[in-house]
Amino acid sequence: MKNNGLLIVFSGPSGAGKDTILKHLLERNENIKLSVSATTRAPRQGEIDGKDYHFIDRAQFDAMEKNDEMLESAEYCGNCYGTPSKPIENWISAGNDVILEIEVQGASQIKSKCPDCVSIFVLPPSLKVLEQRLRDRKTESEEAIQKRLSIARKEISEGNHYDYVVINDTVDNAVDDIIHIICAEKHKVHRDTNLLEGVLNHA
Amino acid sequence: MKNNGLLIVFSGPSGAGKDTILKHLLERNENIKLSVSATTRAPRQGEIDGKDYHFIDRAQFDAMEKNDEMLESAEYCGNCYGTPSKPIENWISAGNDVILEIEVQGASQIKSKCPDCVSIFVLPPSLKVLEQRLRDRKTESEEAIQKRLSIARKEISEGNHYDYVVINDTVDNAVDDIIHIICAEKHKVHRDTNLLEGVLNHA
Repeated sequence: MKNNGLLIVFSGPSGAGKDTILKHLLERNENIKLSVSATTRAPRQGEIDGKDYHFIDRAQFDAMEKNDEMLESAEYCGNCYGTPSKPIENWISAGNDVILEIEVQGASQIKSKCPDCVSIFVLPPSLKVLEQRLRDRKTESEEAIQKRLSIARKEISEGNHYDYVVINDTVDNAVDDIIHIICAEKHKVHRDTNLLEGVLNHA
Repeated sequence: MKNNGLLIVFSGPSGAGKDTILKHLLERNENIKLSVSATTRAPRQGEIDGKDYHFIDRAQFDAMEKNDEMLESAEYCGNCYGTPSKPIENWISAGNDVILEIEVQGASQIKSKCPDCVSIFVLPPSLKVLEQRLRDRKTESEEAIQKRLSIARKEISEGNHYDYVVINDTVDNAVDDIIHIICAEKHKVHRDTNLLEGVLNHA
């Protein structure tokens, strides 16, 4: 009997190291798949359709929303962003775990639609460390850094809506923690009501 | 800041391999402590006071119950058995995780007194394997084995009152699973409400 995979919602403030953690996590466990968002905005230089985003037009986006094929959606600066539900459903019934990297508001939409999902919030060890990481990128102005820190402060305080918090002190530790959380969740009694009967009836 | 340890309730049918799993678990993680029950029954050959049981007399047992110093208690064949709460409280505030190996009824008493405890039910891969393990012990009559199997059948069906189920296919796998469950539980947001503030305020 093949068990369903988990839907994992993954959020955290900018600079917490989400992308690096996900890269290592996917390398370490090929059963885990990463959900790709759909957007109506034009691809940027170097972005690949189906990898960075599914680039679709407004009519396609509206049709998917109408057919309830988006798990969540939002509009920023005139462009639509959304999470197509079909690929996720297919992976999960095939036993794959699916990770959705998503901001706090989208995460809350997913949690109400899929209460069985596992939500993980990743944090830097401290705001000081976060500030240093943003400075080390050397890509942003002082003003941009201060703005990101102010947003991060707000986002961190929303972490208590998540099931788990993982501190990214080192990438390896954070990836280990997430792998342990996934393992533990698969042993929850309520996720596998056939397990006990299986033991009782298995020859 | 030192976090509190976890209280872990550990049950499973006879022959599931609980003792072997606990032995390996305690060897692999010295932060985990094993609760020792108190009993009014006389020590058997080879049993050590404070290790196998705290052997106390009826007056001591009654006094502890009266002072609310037993987390749970039960009487079998005229002897009292109980779980002293003080050592557990001390370990948990020192940051140790404490395992309580206990049968299903006792586990349910603990869960109502300490809703924050983590309950784990260990199972053999199948009743067939359980039967083979009981036979391999070569210590019991056919009648005794049949009686144990019948009790096991009843106990297995009560597993759905637990938080987690772990299948003891190999001891190493079962111990890994329990270690992952403990790790995951420590990352639950509701267990550490100071965590987010710590990240916000830590210099």
